[in-house]
Amino acid sequence: MFEAKIDASMLRECIESITAIVDEGKLRIAEDGLKLWAVDPANVAMVSFALQSDAFDDFRFAAKDAESSAEVEVEGTTESKAETEIGIDFVKLLGILGIGGREEVELELDEHAQKLFTRMGSLAYTISLLDPSSLRKEPKVPELEFPVQVIIETEEFRRTIRAAEKIGDHIVLGVDGEVFYMEAEGEMEKLRLGLRKEQLIHLTPGTLHSLYSLDYISAMSKGMSHAKNITLNLGKDYPLQIEFEVAEGKGKVNYLVAPRIESE
Amino acid sequence: MFEAKIDASMLRECIESITAIVDEGKLRIAEDGLKLWAVDPANVAMVSFALQSDAFDDFRFAAKDAESSAEVEVEGTTESKAETEIGIDFVKLLGILGIGGREEVELELDEHAQKLFTRMGSLAYTISLLDPSSLRKEPKVPELEFPVQVIIETEEFRRTIRAAEKIGDHIVLGVDGEVFYMEAEGEMEKLRLGLRKEQLIHLTPGTLHSLYSLDYISAMSKGMSHAKNITLNLGKDYPLQIEFEVAEGKGKVNYLVAPRIESE
Amino acid sequence: MFEAKIDASMLRECIESITAIVDEGKLRIAEDGLKLWAVDPANVAMVSFALQSDAFDDFRFAAKDAESSAEVEVEGTTESKAETEIGIDFVKLLGILGIGGREEVELELDEHAQKLFTRMGSLAYTISLLDPSSLRKEPKVPELEFPVQVIIETEEFRRTIRAAEKIGDHIVLGVDGEVFYMEAEGEMEKLRLGLRKEQLIHLTPGTLHSLYSLDYISAMSKGMSHAKNITLNLGKDYPLQIEFEVAEGKGKVNYLVAPRIESE
Repeated sequence: MFEAKIDASMLRECIESITAIVDEGKLRIAEDGLKLWAVDPANVAMVSFALQSDAFDDFRFAAKDAESSAEVEVEGTTESKAETEIGIDFVKLLGILGIGGREEVELELDEHAQKLFTRMGSLAYTISLLDPSSLRKEPKVPELEFPVQVIIETEEFRRTIRAAEKIGDHIVLGVDGEVFYMEAEGEMEKLRLGLRKEQLIHLTPGTLHSLYSLDYISAMSKGMSHAKNITLNLGKDYPLQIEFEVAEGKGKVNYLVAPRIESE
Repeated sequence: MFEAKIDASMLRECIESITAIVDEGKLRIAEDGLKLWAVDPANVAMVSFALQSDAFDDFRFAAKDAESSAEVEVEGTTESKAETEIGIDFVKLLGILGIGGREEVELELDEHAQKLFTRMGSLAYTISLLDPSSLRKEPKVPELEFPVQVIIETEEFRRTIRAAEKIGDHIVLGVDGEVFYMEAEGEMEKLRLGLRKEQLIHLTPGTLHSLYSLDYISAMSKGMSHAKNITLNLGKDYPLQIEFEVAEGKGKVNYLVAPRIESE
Repeated sequence: MFEAKIDASMLRECIESITAIVDEGKLRIAEDGLKLWAVDPANVAMVSFALQSDAFDDFRFAAKDAESSAEVEVEGTTESKAETEIGIDFVKLLGILGIGGREEVELELDEHAQKLFTRMGSLAYTISLLDPSSLRKEPKVPELEFPVQVIIETEEFRRTIRAAEKIGDHIVLGVDGEVFYMEAEGEMEKLRLGLRKEQLIHLTPGTLHSLYSLDYISAMSKGMSHAKNITLNLGKDYPLQIEFEVAEGKGKVNYLVAPRIESE
């Protein structure tokens, strides 16, 4: 049993952060909220998403039966954590949420019929769930250690990505001492954003950089449009992790994108 | 002789309600105003349009000669009603009216040269008339009786149509007791707007529904965008009639669309 | 040596007036400002552009060496005028200036590396210069005498061009006594803007007209969008010259377009 109410624009913001990476995925529903992690079809980018139950105006959940609960080791003790997993086509769901003028969304899961009911005022929308076994397996979240962390205003980051899109297909993110930089290069052009520590919210000084495919960073850039700040975790020729909050701090999104080899 | 002046946005609104169904048509001009009725090329939808002469800031009309007048029986008496019929490409005319910054439009008909002169401030636009005999015949307006009438806010209707466009190709309109509903179904999705009598401006209770092609309803939905409310006349597996006012109540538009057979 | 600072939107406005005609061109830098003249690839339209050094918040220039200076005869005396010529892809430069949120642009020329550095806040953009010898030669500015001059509000002109685009491929500009007119004709339609002397800022009375390709006039119409008024210099079957100011009067743009032969 899952029934919940949430602000429509808050739900939209959450789903947009997911559809930046994948069209569909397995959403895990538990007493404490929603969770998802998924990789893109090319295995280059990953999204982890979590939304606390208190982001909802109303949130009721009860696991169907023992089958759907799992043994999870939490802080040294083994306890049973009830969880329901549903497969959702987020792009379709987002399309309907995009129809303006509705302020609150009610969600209701029919596990038996494998449908998710959505009610927005007098408009009822039902979407069939996807069979979770037909979806890509959830990725193993890699254990990564990032020597450098940068916290930057989202708009500064996004503006630079928009400019970089006009220049080339790749982008370098790096730090050089106390400066964070983003660089894109075309045949005739070169673009560089350079921000000193004092122009950032946070910077771990260092000397390293990595190259990424701009396609993925651009997609992520759209998914983060509602967040005020983003945290970039960086290494040398290493994956990039981008973390930000959604739903007024009650949701967390974590993107991971693999580096590209620099040809030189 | 026909000469008239009208507010440009009012004229645009009128023509948009026509071009939702047909690109061109025969406009009948008489002392009491303008009239048109036409079917779309596929014979699925029909528009009837009437604009009173007092919607105009100035309206002068005199029939050219006896040929163009017709014997019409009005309220039991037979009187001669003078009328001029002209063929107009409304899409072309609308294109020019769409150029912003002009507030009043002067119209002048040159029956001899078969041209319509349009003046918007210092901009003069002349369009050649179409030979009425080359246009599709005006349809016979069918005599229909609608068991159910629903009056609804246009924006509620249009928002549902926009959502339905994302789901499928057809839409059901119906009443179930004291509820009016609109339903669209896709392979994985179902959308339903349900409005109780008290959420509507008017509802005749009943139990019936019909299926329509969404293409036509979408087109009509664009043509009604300036009206505050629309009246839906409904039957069981029956044509849908949509009525609304244009030009601040001085014009009336009436759409009719044939039902589709439900395959089941 | 060339270093300068300028308001970003002012620079954008200048470059837009150039890219209306050419994608790339030779920009001449001298102590008193910037200059460019160029023809479009089809040799139908020409742009002359000049921006005074005092349009810049800061402007420093020194010619590299004797090679790049030229003997120019100015008002009867022969003096040496130092000048540097650089080839720029204006479309690429404009793309980056279009990224919002930057208020001032710093320009710096590296003549040795043949690069132009651009700095907008913390965003640095470098564009490689084009070899001036690889660009089309600057046109000889023809000596023309225009019997008629018309000064008109830019928006009135642009609105008419937008309307004319819906009608046909050509446009006639002319004067008939004390009336300036613009005319476009399609198969079924005719559009005419007619403005009497008192509706214009200036008009030389006369009787003449010329026909132009609308493609070029439309492009020019986009390049002039920031100017309040434009000056049209006209003749009979003669080139059209359009002059207007940019950068708050500190820049001047001059378009020239060849007439088309009227087929009759």
